[in-house]
Amino acid sequence: MESKKTGISITTIHRLSYYSRALVESGELVFISSQELARLTGLGDALVRRDLSYFGRFGVPGKGYPVAELKERISGILGTNRKWNIALIGLGNLGSALFRYKGFERQGFEITAIFDNDPGKIGKSKAGIEIRGIDWLEREVRKKKIEMVIVAVPADAAQGVVDTAVGAGIKAILNFAPVKVRVPGAVNLVNIDFTVELERLSCLATGKMAGGEIKRA
Amino acid sequence: MESKKTGISITTIHRLSYYSRALVESGELVFISSQELARLTGLGDALVRRDLSYFGRFGVPGKGYPVAELKERISGILGTNRKWNIALIGLGNLGSALFRYKGFERQGFEITAIFDNDPGKIGKSKAGIEIRGIDWLEREVRKKKIEMVIVAVPADAAQGVVDTAVGAGIKAILNFAPVKVRVPGAVNLVNIDFTVELERLSCLATGKMAGGEIKRA
Repeated sequence: MESKKTGISITTIHRLSYYSRALVESGELVFISSQELARLTGLGDALVRRDLSYFGRFGVPGKGYPVAELKERISGILGTNRKWNIALIGLGNLGSALFRYKGFERQGFEITAIFDNDPGKIGKSKAGIEIRGIDWLEREVRKKKIEMVIVAVPADAAQGVVDTAVGAGIKAILNFAPVKVRVPGAVNLVNIDFTVELERLSCLATGKMAGGEIKRA
Repeated sequence: MESKKTGISITTIHRLSYYSRALVESGELVFISSQELARLTGLGDALVRRDLSYFGRFGVPGKGYPVAELKERISGILGTNRKWNIALIGLGNLGSALFRYKGFERQGFEITAIFDNDPGKIGKSKAGIEIRGIDWLEREVRKKKIEMVIVAVPADAAQGVVDTAVGAGIKAILNFAPVKVRVPGAVNLVNIDFTVELERLSCLATGKMAGGEIKRA
């Protein structure tokens, strides 16, 4: 669950996302204290201080951290200090919801190509983007400088679509299909599995533990 | 990011979900080794051994862990050894995708009530479930013994919907609205934020790190 490539854990990345959002929400502040950042994110004060300490000692005693610099450092790590062109593959219910999802563009993520295998959709446009068949992927990736794909196809179509994307040179894939897809080591894959999230919820709601404390690992 | 209620970390819960799935996939095995479980989940062998050690020493030397008992222990922790009745709030594109999502029912999660605020949808049926206005929530929660809700409404409607659910006695909420909703301490809330997941992907794809190694925290 930890990226071998960066040594940065998934939970740390998530916290960086929350800090990044909190800094935007913090408005016109020039400095922010770890306490304020803890309050805005709902995270513990000690945890926030520890995370920030990794950036080196650039906090100013009695004032806190310079907001502009902190934003810049975090967005540099998250890769949100630039624009990402994204291809959406699969324009069913989920794909349509993702296409209209607020928040992507604010962080520099823009869906600039759409693919589906439904002949009734291919050739039509969605917000000015022509929907293409998957056989157009490689051409569109080149033409539109696409670096990321979002896979929102049924489980049985996912591996094929991922293989096509990898073949087109894509190095970053966000997969929503509830199936384990395989990618070469150089390709970054993030899976969003709704069942896993529901299990996390039922685990919390159950609050039971078998055989003692299972601590973070 | 760690549950105060169970002391179990989110990444550990996620791994338990993967183990659970791998054990189902393992087919007719009576015993499973940590190596085999590592192979099936793609996780490290040492990590799997460490996780399993928390269950106590019930592995059999030279054979591995008894599959049936391991399944039972994990599903007991995850709360998937029982059925959960779920209300889906919001039947837009995302809600429709979630309603048809494969995999929920396999783990005991069943959407048995649907709510929307669209007069054009209220009163209609979806797979035998009558779509209701949110004012029916409390009645339906009681009648159908609903314990979880999935919130798939627009950001500006989310807090109101969550408040209504909490008022109806719901203690477990899976929120897809891209907004920070507030719940009382006794209520379990899991947020799925697609932008955070895309940031995780761009972070991995960027592979950059500001100021040294940020290790798991």
